[in-house]
Amino acid sequence: MKEITSTSNNLIKEVAKLQQKKYRNELILIEGKKAVDEAINAKLEIKYIFTLKDDYQNYDTYLVTEAVMKKISTTESPANVVCVAKKPIYKTADFYNFSKIVLLDNIKDSGNLGTIIRASCAFGVEGIFLFGDTTDEFSPKTIRSSAGNMFKIPILKVNLAEIKEFKKTHKFLATVCHSNKFEYKNTKENMIVMFGSEADGLCKDLLNLSDDTITIKMKNRVESLNLALSAGIILYELQK
Amino acid sequence: MKEITSTSNNLIKEVAKLQQKKYRNELILIEGKKAVDEAINAKLEIKYIFTLKDDYQNYDTYLVTEAVMKKISTTESPANVVCVAKKPIYKTADFYNFSKIVLLDNIKDSGNLGTIIRASCAFGVEGIFLFGDTTDEFSPKTIRSSAGNMFKIPILKVNLAEIKEFKKTHKFLATVCHSNKFEYKNTKENMIVMFGSEADGLCKDLLNLSDDTITIKMKNRVESLNLALSAGIILYELQK
Repeated sequence: MKEITSTSNNLIKEVAKLQQKKYRNELILIEGKKAVDEAINAKLEIKYIFTLKDDYQNYDTYLVTEAVMKKISTTESPANVVCVAKKPIYKTADFYNFSKIVLLDNIKDSGNLGTIIRASCAFGVEGIFLFGDTTDEFSPKTIRSSAGNMFKIPILKVNLAEIKEFKKTHKFLATVCHSNKFEYKNTKENMIVMFGSEADGLCKDLLNLSDDTITIKMKNRVESLNLALSAGIILYELQK
Repeated sequence: MKEITSTSNNLIKEVAKLQQKKYRNELILIEGKKAVDEAINAKLEIKYIFTLKDDYQNYDTYLVTEAVMKKISTTESPANVVCVAKKPIYKTADFYNFSKIVLLDNIKDSGNLGTIIRASCAFGVEGIFLFGDTTDEFSPKTIRSSAGNMFKIPILKVNLAEIKEFKKTHKFLATVCHSNKFEYKNTKENMIVMFGSEADGLCKDLLNLSDDTITIKMKNRVESLNLALSAGIILYELQK
């Protein structure tokens, strides 16, 4: 294996930049053995792997010191392995035949986003659309919260025109906090399940597209539930 | 209203200490109008209220400057109102007649704890036991994640001997990540629903107490789900 021992190595300096969104145009940083393995399984194009000990044959692998690993890691206790990969690229056409798509509008919290991606994988969602000013899906915190699941599912930023194309083939379901209608009949139709932002719920443009609403029945009404927790319950229900 | 304009005022210095767990023996810090209102509704003993404008009659209220508010707040953008209250005090006997109790073992993440408290309120849980080395329920982040709901429900730290007393009256349900048994029949019995830590699940002592297990059915098995999201799904199911 090649070795890098200096934190001022040029490649290391370039890789450390990927911690910031503005540098993640083509490449992303993936931390931890589980996430790296998932990226490899998902056949992402791996550019480099940096490791404290394990060799990854067939990949451009560098053995690095703990100081170097600390420099490229975003976590307090640095990972044992980090890789740099090309962003996976999808297009709306990849989603046409999906029977269940999640659409996230303006989600601000990276932890929520990763947690929803993870639950989507568990509950049989086939693809995820990001709409509005949703937080970057490739932030280290989102990748971490998804527990490596984000490379198992296509995720795509979409605009309103692109979403509208799915009106012909998919039923649009708006999740809302408060409604008098609790029971949702799960049909066999293709569907897009829409979740709004933590603070404001779904935007008007998306509410206007909805064919039906869905809400969570609560014994004691609380003002709202945590977004990721709500999404978990609804996706769990829709899996039935 | 009395006024405080100096960040080096003695009372303000004492209040700011409550941001740290080691000073929260008797008193706690509650930030934001919603949480303060909930604490008042729950009849917590309110010692002081600090406000940027609103008067709270019947309470020892201080009008403070933004700088003072910033000193006592833990959030980036300081709240409009903060209060200091006495910790609510419960004993196990308060829980004997509860039909549904949540037991949290060794929960490390303050956000998870607050989110579970909030969902517990929504789904008809009557009390919460904290076991093992669970994070402080009165941390500002937990209060914030509970969205003010934590004062609506009794929360008590318990040891194994105290829990065992409930074996006579309650069915113990262990939530586990992986099991071949998916269907849980909700009976009319009193129950204690146990959730384990993010990293390790339930400890052996608690698993030994369990009368039955419950797990979440997933279409595509992922290694695990986020703890608060899992708790949300299970408490939602048990509400039915």
